[in-house]
Amino acid sequence: MNKTDARSTENNTFWKGYPEIESGLDSVSRRMHEIVNSGNFPLAEAVEKLINANGKMLRPAFMLLSGRFGRQPKDLSDLAAALELLHVATLIHDDIIDEAGTRRGVPTIHSVHGVKGAVLAGDWLFSRSFRLASSSSSPANARLLAALVGALCSEEIHQDLDRYRWPRSERNYLRKISGKTAALFALSLRAGAVETKAAPRHVMALTRIGWATGMAFQIIDDVLDFESTEGVLGKPVAADMRDGLCTLPLIIALKKVPEKIEAYLGNEKLCNDGIEKVLAAVNSCGALKEARACAGIYTARAMQELGHLPKGKAKEELHDIIKQLLSRHN
Amino acid sequence: MNKTDARSTENNTFWKGYPEIESGLDSVSRRMHEIVNSGNFPLAEAVEKLINANGKMLRPAFMLLSGRFGRQPKDLSDLAAALELLHVATLIHDDIIDEAGTRRGVPTIHSVHGVKGAVLAGDWLFSRSFRLASSSSSPANARLLAALVGALCSEEIHQDLDRYRWPRSERNYLRKISGKTAALFALSLRAGAVETKAAPRHVMALTRIGWATGMAFQIIDDVLDFESTEGVLGKPVAADMRDGLCTLPLIIALKKVPEKIEAYLGNEKLCNDGIEKVLAAVNSCGALKEARACAGIYTARAMQELGHLPKGKAKEELHDIIKQLLSRHN
Repeated sequence: MNKTDARSTENNTFWKGYPEIESGLDSVSRRMHEIVNSGNFPLAEAVEKLINANGKMLRPAFMLLSGRFGRQPKDLSDLAAALELLHVATLIHDDIIDEAGTRRGVPTIHSVHGVKGAVLAGDWLFSRSFRLASSSSSPANARLLAALVGALCSEEIHQDLDRYRWPRSERNYLRKISGKTAALFALSLRAGAVETKAAPRHVMALTRIGWATGMAFQIIDDVLDFESTEGVLGKPVAADMRDGLCTLPLIIALKKVPEKIEAYLGNEKLCNDGIEKVLAAVNSCGALKEARACAGIYTARAMQELGHLPKGKAKEELHDIIKQLLSRHN
Repeated sequence: MNKTDARSTENNTFWKGYPEIESGLDSVSRRMHEIVNSGNFPLAEAVEKLINANGKMLRPAFMLLSGRFGRQPKDLSDLAAALELLHVATLIHDDIIDEAGTRRGVPTIHSVHGVKGAVLAGDWLFSRSFRLASSSSSPANARLLAALVGALCSEEIHQDLDRYRWPRSERNYLRKISGKTAALFALSLRAGAVETKAAPRHVMALTRIGWATGMAFQIIDDVLDFESTEGVLGKPVAADMRDGLCTLPLIIALKKVPEKIEAYLGNEKLCNDGIEKVLAAVNSCGALKEARACAGIYTARAMQELGHLPKGKAKEELHDIIKQLLSRHN
C-alpha cells in the first residue's frame, strides 16, 4: 500500500457514500504528495508522515463540493491542496507552541527534528501553499488565503494572552471561534464557488453556510473536549481547560455555578483535584447541554442558508455531510 | 521624531546622494508601518521595533531601482514592502532558531514574547507579505516571492544538517549562498523590472547582476565575520565558525594549512583556545585575501552585466551602489 492509499483509506470512513468527493480528495492527496516531494526539501519525509496521519480533509472536501455549484466547472485539486497544506503548516507550528509530543498518533516534527526543523518545515509549507495558490487560483482567492493565515495567527496570540484569564465572556469566545474555525470553513466553501464562477447569491449562501457550520463544529469540539475520554480524542479530557483556555461549557458553568468552580481557577495550571471538581460541576450543571443548544442555533442557521442553494446532488450531499458533522458524539 | 523618521534617518548614511531611492524607501517604510499597524495584531509594537532597527533596506532599494529600467513606470512601494516584510519575518524565525537575544541592538521577539509569540509573529508577517504581494504584483512575481521563501527554508535546513561537518567543499558553499543571498538579490532586481515591463534582455541582465552581487556580498560578509571585531558587527568574531558553520575563508584555510586547523574542529562547539588558533591560521595563511579575490570574480561579473543596461541615471546609481556595497570593509 503506498502512502497516498494509506491516507485515502483512512478517509474512507467519513466519505463512504460520497464517491465524487472521495475521488476528488484522492487527487488532492496526490497533489499534496507531489508538492511535498518536489524541490528536494530535507524534511519532506517527516511532513509526509504528518500528511498521511492527517484527518478527514474537511476543508478541501468543502472546497471541492462548493465547486459543484459553479457555472464553469474547474479542476480545484491544486487550490484544495494549497488549503490543506496551509492547514498542515499551521499544525506544525501549533505543535511547537503547544510543545505537543504526538499528533494523531504520529510524533510531531518538533519532537523529532527540534524547534528549528519545525519552524522551517512550517514556513516551507506556507511558501509551497502560497505558491500553489498564486498559480492555481484567482488573485482574490490567493489574497483570501493569505489574509486567513494572518487572522489565524492574530487569534492565536490573542488566545495566548487570554490564557488563565477566567472567566471569559461568551461574546469573546464566539468572536474567537468566528475568526478561526468559522473563517476557515467559510473560505473553504466560498473559494470553490468563486473559482467556478457560481452566481453571487450562491457564493454568499455557501460562505454563510461555511461560517455557521464552522461555529457549530467548533462549539461541538469544545463540548466533546469535556465529554470525551483520553482514548477517543487522543488527548486528556478537558485539555483546553488544563491549558488555561476557557471554552463555552466552562463559560456557561461559571455563570450557573460559580461557587463550585471559581476557587479552582488561578493563574497557572490547575491541580488534578481542581480539574476533577470543575469537570464534575460542568457536567452536573447542564452546561454541556446548553453549549450543544448554542451549537444547534448555528446548525439551524446553516440549514436555513442551504435552502438558498439550487436543488441537486451537490446540495443533498452538502446537507448530509453538515448534518453528520454536527451530530457527532466523539 | 516619529517611528518612520527614525528608520529613514538611519538609512540616510548609506543612501545619501541617492535622493530618488531615499524618498522611495520612505514610502516603503510608511507602507510597512501601515501594514504592521493594521488588523489589530497583538504583537504589532514588537514587530515595529524590529522594523525600525532594521538595516539598509537593500532589497527594496534594489527593487525600486530596477523599476526605473521599465517601459511602464509603476509605484512599487507595495511590492517592495512585501519583500522587506518577508525578510523581517525570516529574521524573526531565524532568531528563534539561533536563540538570539538581540538583533541590531533590539531584544528579539523570541526573547521578549517567547517562542510562541515569535512563531506567530513571523507567520503573521508572512501572511501580510503574501497578501500584499498578491494584491500588488503580477501572479508571476507573487509566485516568485513564495518560491523564494521555500528555497530559503530548504537551504536553512540543509545548512543545519551540515553543522559541524567540516570540511565543506567550496562547491557546496557556493551552492548554498546561491540559494540564499544571491537568489534574494536576483529576485529584488528582477521583480521591479518585470512589474514595469522592462525589455526581456534588461530583465535578464538585472537578474544576473542581482545574482552576482548577492554572491559577492555574501562572500564579503563571511570574510568580514573573520576580520571584524565584536563592536562593529554586533556579534562575536567568527560567529559562523562558533556555530559550526564552514564558510569560504575556513574552507580555503583548511586546504592550505589543514595541519593547523583540523585538530580543533570536532562535532561540537569549539573551545576558546581552538577558536583563537583557527582564527590565527585563517588570518596568516592568506585565506581571507583569496576569499576576497573570489568575491572579486562575482563583482566583475556583475559589472560586466551592467554593460547590458541602457545608459542613464538609474544605471549609474546601480553601478555606484554595487561598487560601494562590494568594497565595504566593515
